[in-house]
Amino acid sequence: MAGVNLILIEPDEATHAGRLALGGSRAEHVRTVLKVVPGSTVRVGIIDGPFGVGTVTAVDSTAVSLQCRFDADTPARPQVDLLLALPRPKVLKRLWAQLAALGVGRIMLTNAARVERNYFDTHILGPEVYRPLLIEGLQQARDTRLPIVSVHRQLKVFLEDELERDSDGIRIYADPGTGKRIDDALLAHAGERVLLAVGPEGGWTDYERHMLAGHGFEPVTAGSRTLRSDTACIALLSLVHDARRGNTEAHVG
Amino acid sequence: MAGVNLILIEPDEATHAGRLALGGSRAEHVRTVLKVVPGSTVRVGIIDGPFGVGTVTAVDSTAVSLQCRFDADTPARPQVDLLLALPRPKVLKRLWAQLAALGVGRIMLTNAARVERNYFDTHILGPEVYRPLLIEGLQQARDTRLPIVSVHRQLKVFLEDELERDSDGIRIYADPGTGKRIDDALLAHAGERVLLAVGPEGGWTDYERHMLAGHGFEPVTAGSRTLRSDTACIALLSLVHDARRGNTEAHVG
Repeated sequence: MAGVNLILIEPDEATHAGRLALGGSRAEHVRTVLKVVPGSTVRVGIIDGPFGVGTVTAVDSTAVSLQCRFDADTPARPQVDLLLALPRPKVLKRLWAQLAALGVGRIMLTNAARVERNYFDTHILGPEVYRPLLIEGLQQARDTRLPIVSVHRQLKVFLEDELERDSDGIRIYADPGTGKRIDDALLAHAGERVLLAVGPEGGWTDYERHMLAGHGFEPVTAGSRTLRSDTACIALLSLVHDARRGNTEAHVG
Repeated sequence: MAGVNLILIEPDEATHAGRLALGGSRAEHVRTVLKVVPGSTVRVGIIDGPFGVGTVTAVDSTAVSLQCRFDADTPARPQVDLLLALPRPKVLKRLWAQLAALGVGRIMLTNAARVERNYFDTHILGPEVYRPLLIEGLQQARDTRLPIVSVHRQLKVFLEDELERDSDGIRIYADPGTGKRIDDALLAHAGERVLLAVGPEGGWTDYERHMLAGHGFEPVTAGSRTLRSDTACIALLSLVHDARRGNTEAHVG
């Protein structure tokens, strides 16, 4: 449990009165890394709920008991959603925690011409695998908002039927070399949600570019270098978040 | 050899007349992924030298022969250098190829108060381990410029004795939450080299912040979320490169 800056718990782990008993690896982390004693406080959070503070009431060799007090408000969901052409399983496995740490509202994994069909057969797409990895990223970055994950077998069907129903905000897709800087693309859209589409390592095909443009996606670039899917996602999400901070400052200032 | 967009060769692998015989995994990649036949061309590059084009002259089960023609000029070294508090070996291992892919002139690994001493005992700091990983990243991103790597056991000695001798350009250090946006910090420094310092996962200590500031480093931020070393490096380097592109456009336009 390296990099735990917040202990996340399930909504039904704490009692209504805020009592919580941690066991397993979380108890071990709290005992051996945070070195708590009765009276110590630790940062806690409820998954998709509020942050809080837990005061240690008892510590033994297997469990740590806490009395928690939670904030009234739940933090806002990150303003960025990611439409990602399914990466190789090995790359996706590494990516889950990093996406959650950077902050993303929804992760929509999609097929594309240059995605190999057998990538869909991996256990990495099972919630029992990715949920703990997402939680690991949230605990690192101190957020409670679990990204919502969905898998889409056909990009065309997704864009035409599923996306149009419920999406607002600005849509951008990454295309190395062409396209605007993200900062410039988002400049006139302060406060709107951002949907960022990131292609497979071989890139989008012309047909896919055309289809994305037809659904309102604007090309953006993080430079002309071809990056691995995970590196590209981290780079692009950072640029979106940073542009948003720039927008906000401009707005506030 | 996934994600090979350029075949890199050592300076003495090709003859003066441009003849080159590829064996091993590079030959296999060229034969089975690029599916070359005599007359096919492939992108090649000499490590720390020019790009070129190789025309296949012969293919057999173990080797591929090429006749290469190289550009007159060697591409410029990336304008960004990285001073990085030594990450956990597991994290650093994943990071080498990504740093080279993003583009960095020098990678200076340093000690810091929150770096564990035993991180320095890893084989990941040996050139025989990191050089192939850096080359992997360059081949992915299509660059020939191998980052120069150095390891520094004491941040104070590095800043006082080693850095001052030979460094120009702007210096920035990452500090989550405080500091300017990178875009703003680099605005007045178009064309200058950037030295970016990234701390350990536990962050810089106040003493280290003070020392960095005393050597001309300005704090910058990529937001308030605490990121893992590798995620933070990728995010910050992307922001520096993107800010540079913005500077250049502003300069050109």
